[in-house]
Amino acid sequence: MPILPTSDFMSLALRQAEAAARRGEVPVGAVLVRDGAVIAADGNRVEELADPTAHAEMQVIRAASAQAGGRLAGVDLYVTLEPCPMCAAALSLARIRRVYFGAYDPKSGGVEHGPKVFDHATCHHRPEVYGGLEERRAAELLRAFFRDRR
Amino acid sequence: MPILPTSDFMSLALRQAEAAARRGEVPVGAVLVRDGAVIAADGNRVEELADPTAHAEMQVIRAASAQAGGRLAGVDLYVTLEPCPMCAAALSLARIRRVYFGAYDPKSGGVEHGPKVFDHATCHHRPEVYGGLEERRAAELLRAFFRDRR
Repeated sequence: MPILPTSDFMSLALRQAEAAARRGEVPVGAVLVRDGAVIAADGNRVEELADPTAHAEMQVIRAASAQAGGRLAGVDLYVTLEPCPMCAAALSLARIRRVYFGAYDPKSGGVEHGPKVFDHATCHHRPEVYGGLEERRAAELLRAFFRDRR
Repeated sequence: MPILPTSDFMSLALRQAEAAARRGEVPVGAVLVRDGAVIAADGNRVEELADPTAHAEMQVIRAASAQAGGRLAGVDLYVTLEPCPMCAAALSLARIRRVYFGAYDPKSGGVEHGPKVFDHATCHHRPEVYGGLEERRAAELLRAFFRDRR
């Protein structure tokens, strides 16, 4: 797979979010990248799996870890929404190198909001964080989903 | 299954922690209880599954949610160690009613330490928390495990 620019990986994550919406899931998508190649891509599957932990980030971490035999040093995450505290802490445990996220999530986010999981001495690996990438597209997807549901 | 007192559920969690140690895992065990009956029991399986998210709490939440078809309202957790931020946030997402934990974890805990995940407006369900249950036994298990490894 050719090396793609950052915005293309976020486009792939957005496509995963759109696919999640079509499955009736809150539209969040995530992609893991190592050395310029996608190693996992998935969306939210909370409803499908009846698993409140099946956020997009958890899905890709678990898939890629199983494949890699453990932690994901040197791996970058692209996700359409600011990770919640569960996913933020999981990204730290997995030793993810960089986190690029789309929309900010003041209501439930755990990176820039609320518990700010990476900002404590109890966080033993802090990924580099880049927020607001393709923010408008990621936020519009979520808005459209919740508008259609009401 | 007969209704058991609280300390018996923690003994079951401790047995899961001991089993985890025998598998070479950091010895943490967890039990979920609904209406006085155990609905899930497991230990840490991070090494076995090559999954950094496979903490004891995540294992029992995922097993019980799949069984129950979703969230775990009215369900109580017994776990031998203070949950980390990932597990604390997952317990909130799963709508767990009460969290009883054994040893406090100043280094990596996320309930009474560090990000204190339940203590923010972004936490939309806060379980009742009871820490230090069978604390001595839970802490000794962890100490013995790390002593043997060094």
